[in-house]
Amino acid sequence: MEKFSRNSRITCITKILIENPNKVINLYHFTEMFNSAKSTISEDLLVVRDTLSKFGMGRIETVPGAAGGIKFINGISEEEKLTFLDNLSTKLMENNRIIPGNFLYMLDIMYNPEIIHKAGLILASSFDKLNPDYILTVETKGIPLAYEVARLLGIQLIIVRRDSKVTEGPTVSINYVSGSTKRIQTMSLSKRALKKNSGCIFIDDFMKAGGTALGIIDLLKEFESEVLGIGVLVDSFEAPKKLVHNYVSLIQFNGVGEDGRGILKPTPELD
Amino acid sequence: MEKFSRNSRITCITKILIENPNKVINLYHFTEMFNSAKSTISEDLLVVRDTLSKFGMGRIETVPGAAGGIKFINGISEEEKLTFLDNLSTKLMENNRIIPGNFLYMLDIMYNPEIIHKAGLILASSFDKLNPDYILTVETKGIPLAYEVARLLGIQLIIVRRDSKVTEGPTVSINYVSGSTKRIQTMSLSKRALKKNSGCIFIDDFMKAGGTALGIIDLLKEFESEVLGIGVLVDSFEAPKKLVHNYVSLIQFNGVGEDGRGILKPTPELD
Repeated sequence: MEKFSRNSRITCITKILIENPNKVINLYHFTEMFNSAKSTISEDLLVVRDTLSKFGMGRIETVPGAAGGIKFINGISEEEKLTFLDNLSTKLMENNRIIPGNFLYMLDIMYNPEIIHKAGLILASSFDKLNPDYILTVETKGIPLAYEVARLLGIQLIIVRRDSKVTEGPTVSINYVSGSTKRIQTMSLSKRALKKNSGCIFIDDFMKAGGTALGIIDLLKEFESEVLGIGVLVDSFEAPKKLVHNYVSLIQFNGVGEDGRGILKPTPELD
Repeated sequence: MEKFSRNSRITCITKILIENPNKVINLYHFTEMFNSAKSTISEDLLVVRDTLSKFGMGRIETVPGAAGGIKFINGISEEEKLTFLDNLSTKLMENNRIIPGNFLYMLDIMYNPEIIHKAGLILASSFDKLNPDYILTVETKGIPLAYEVARLLGIQLIIVRRDSKVTEGPTVSINYVSGSTKRIQTMSLSKRALKKNSGCIFIDDFMKAGGTALGIIDLLKEFESEVLGIGVLVDSFEAPKKLVHNYVSLIQFNGVGEDGRGILKPTPELD
C-alpha cells in the first residue's frame, strides 16, 4: 500500500478539517487513509494545529473518549476581521446605494460569497461557545449568511417562511408586529424542522427595531425551544428604540448623510 | 522576520486556496506572508497540487501574465460522488418523507450544510468549464445549494424573488406558467442584480416539468443575458413531459411506491 509524505498528509488533513468544521474525526480515519501509525498522524496534527493557531485561522480541539478524536473550529484573526469590516463599511457607503425610501441597497453584498464567507466566520466565532443546535433565519436576504454560519459551525440551518408551503408538511404559524412599520406579519415553520428543547442562533441581514427577532423568539416558544443569540450584518440606528438588546452586529447604519450616501461604520467591540 | 517550515507553509497555503476557489492568487502573496523565495513557494505548491490531484480533491491551475498566479478549482473524486449519491437516495427513501399530495419532504436535506456542500461540489464541478458569471436561483428552498455552488466557483449569487421588494430598487418582473400546475406565476429581479451579456447557471432544489427554468430563461432575456446550464438536486419523473431538456440532476424521483415511500435513485451518468 502506498505511503504518503508528511507534506502530502498535511495537505489532505488540512483540507478535510476545513471542510468538516466542528465534526469529530477519529484519528483512525487518517491512519487508514494514509496507511500510517497513529503517532505519525498525531505529529501531523500538531503541525496543522500550531500553524492554524499562529495565523489566527482557527483551532483544533481534542475530544476524549471512545467516540473521540479531533475537531476543527473556525476562527479569524483580529487583524483580518478589522480590515474586512473597514472595507465593508466603505463599500456600503458607495454612491447610489441609497434607494427611494432611504433604504440601503445591499443585495450584491448579501449574495457575494467572498464577503458572506468572512462575515459568516466572524459571526460563527462569536457564537461557537454557545453550542447552538441550529442556525435560524427568516427568508430571504439573510439566507446565504445564515447558511454560511451554519456551515462553519457544522450544524443544521432552519429557514422560517413568510407563508406556509404544501411541500413542508404541517406548519406552526404566528403573527408578529414589525417594530418599525407596526404592521402585523406572519411567519411559519414546518413542525418537523426542529426538535424540542433546542438552542438556536437567529441570523439576519438587517435589524431595524427588532420586531422580527421578537417574532422568532415567540415562534421558538411554540417549539419549546429558545434563541441563544442573535447576529446581524447591519444594525440600523435609525429606529428610535430597539425591542431586543442582546445581539451581535458587524456594521452600524446611521442613516443618510447630506451627500446622499449612507453613513456606516464597523460596530465597536464591547469589551 | 520569522521563517516558517514547509509543513507550516503547506497548511496555510492549502487553507487559503480552499477558501478562495477560482480566485487568482499571485505568488507574491505567499512570498510576503512567509518571507520566502518564489522558488520555495513554487515547490510548496507542487506538493499541494499533486496531493489534491491524487486524492481527486480539486486542481491547481497556473494563470500566466503580469496579473497571473495560481488558482484552485474544486473537485470531488468519482468514488466519493457515487457513495454520496447512494447515501442521499437512501436517505430520501426513508419512512415518513411522503407528505399529503405525494410531495417529498426534503427541507432537512436542503438545509443540511454537510449534504449541500457535497451536492454543491458535484454541481460546481459539472459547470466550471462553462465559466459562468453568476449562479441564479428562485427563492427559497434552493438558495443554500445555489449559494454553495456560487461559493465553490468563486462567483456572485443572484436570487430571483416571487414578488418585488422596496429594498431592491427598480425590478424587472415577468409572468410564467408553471409546467405542472399550469398556474400563472410571477418572478422578479432587481435591475441592478446583473450586467448585460452575462452567462448564468440556474440551480434549484427540485424540477418537475421545468416551467420555472423556462421562466428564468425568459427573465434573463430581459437582461440580455442567458442560461448556460441548469442543475437541480432532485429531478421528478412524475411530470409527463419536460419543458427543458438540457440539465444536470443528481437524484431521480420516480413517485411513491406501494409501501408509501418515495422511489429514488442517483441519476445515471451520461457518457
